[in-house]
Amino acid sequence: MVDADAARLTARITREGQEDRVALEEPLEIRVDGAPLAVTMRTPGHDEELALGFLYGEGLIDRPHRAGLTDDLAANIVEVDGPLLRDPGERRFYTTSSCGVCGKGALEEVAVQCPVVARGPVVARALLAALPDRLRQPAFDLTGGVHATGLFDVEGTLLYAREDVGRHNAMDKVVGRALLDGLLPLRDRLLCVSGRLSFELVQKAAVAGAPVLVGVGAPSSLAVELAADRGLTLGGFARRGKVNVYTGLERLAR
Amino acid sequence: MVDADAARLTARITREGQEDRVALEEPLEIRVDGAPLAVTMRTPGHDEELALGFLYGEGLIDRPHRAGLTDDLAANIVEVDGPLLRDPGERRFYTTSSCGVCGKGALEEVAVQCPVVARGPVVARALLAALPDRLRQPAFDLTGGVHATGLFDVEGTLLYAREDVGRHNAMDKVVGRALLDGLLPLRDRLLCVSGRLSFELVQKAAVAGAPVLVGVGAPSSLAVELAADRGLTLGGFARRGKVNVYTGLERLAR
Repeated sequence: MVDADAARLTARITREGQEDRVALEEPLEIRVDGAPLAVTMRTPGHDEELALGFLYGEGLIDRPHRAGLTDDLAANIVEVDGPLLRDPGERRFYTTSSCGVCGKGALEEVAVQCPVVARGPVVARALLAALPDRLRQPAFDLTGGVHATGLFDVEGTLLYAREDVGRHNAMDKVVGRALLDGLLPLRDRLLCVSGRLSFELVQKAAVAGAPVLVGVGAPSSLAVELAADRGLTLGGFARRGKVNVYTGLERLAR
Repeated sequence: MVDADAARLTARITREGQEDRVALEEPLEIRVDGAPLAVTMRTPGHDEELALGFLYGEGLIDRPHRAGLTDDLAANIVEVDGPLLRDPGERRFYTTSSCGVCGKGALEEVAVQCPVVARGPVVARALLAALPDRLRQPAFDLTGGVHATGLFDVEGTLLYAREDVGRHNAMDKVVGRALLDGLLPLRDRLLCVSGRLSFELVQKAAVAGAPVLVGVGAPSSLAVELAADRGLTLGGFARRGKVNVYTGLERLAR
């Protein structure tokens, strides 16, 4: 039996005469008050969450806005009602940093956008290591081709998970859902991603106020620096009951 | 002994009192004739190749241009001499597609940009399956945190490989190197990537004229559609002597 919700994230194809499934990928245009703002390649589904999570992560909104796909679903356009908090045309990094676009400038940009995350919960290392196992990934099970992000409470109960061909989209969808549910800033909740930990993912987690971000994969140098700078607990290589903790050790239970 | 070139792609950190290495990630600004064009998060190194490969993939250049980092290396700015083939300010997808931003519009856009790839070589399935094993990944071995792209000749000999925290950057660096070496369009050479096969990676391979693209991971629906449309042989899940071939079966040796 194939999970019907997960199947909607996939496409049937014929490969060398046999039926197979691959992860669905389509472009999505995000419009605000009718004006095109961004195009992202994503797995269709939860597009309103994606748009709102993206705008929240960019510091363009700080509360739920009305959002919805246009009537022609195949057009892949999601409309969001404004107003935005700032002009989205302002280019980032190189207008706010006086030193070119060094990593320090990138960290400062995030610091302007969001405060240091709240002290938040104390959690057992074993719980952090177990989060990937609790992250449901039914579309991955069908295709091997999607990333996932999950939001958990401090007991490690999964609140919701989203899957997408783009790892940043999966995170945006979770943040957008949390925004709609009044859960932002996340304070004492935990984020877990199925892959590697880039600067971009730590940025989105920090802006959402997440005290803890765990990934199955490796972090980058700038991801570790940003997590330290914004006070996140960052865990990587969470597999087989173990996790490497790079920053925010004060949240680990003794 | 740590590979010195690979070590340059990593940063030393201290994790819970122990020395560790993570993949280096820093922003890079690409400027053309002094005007900022794009910012990407990348692993430093081969930045001229990255800039040229990116511009080639966007259809903005079709021959080598002079490129180099500015004197202050920490500024992370690469300068490229123009002129470009078109105004980079033209936004893509939603200006060229009359149907919103559907997948069909995305395919048409690539079709405008590049012809169907040349018929190219006939290769053994076993060779395609073996490419990932021949893709040197020394920085991955140190960190577990970088993607790789390799260019091979039809015998499966590695011509060059590039590693980067961004999968699209690793591909851009290989394409940029090929451009500098006069190897474009690639015709009878093979590309292999260490991860999943997104639309974006197939697009870059198609624009570079690669007849064959193989990945260790899964393809997306739009990646398969684009490969079929542009005539590429697309292989996924290349592991343990096996490979799934999605399109371009006529290049498989009987």
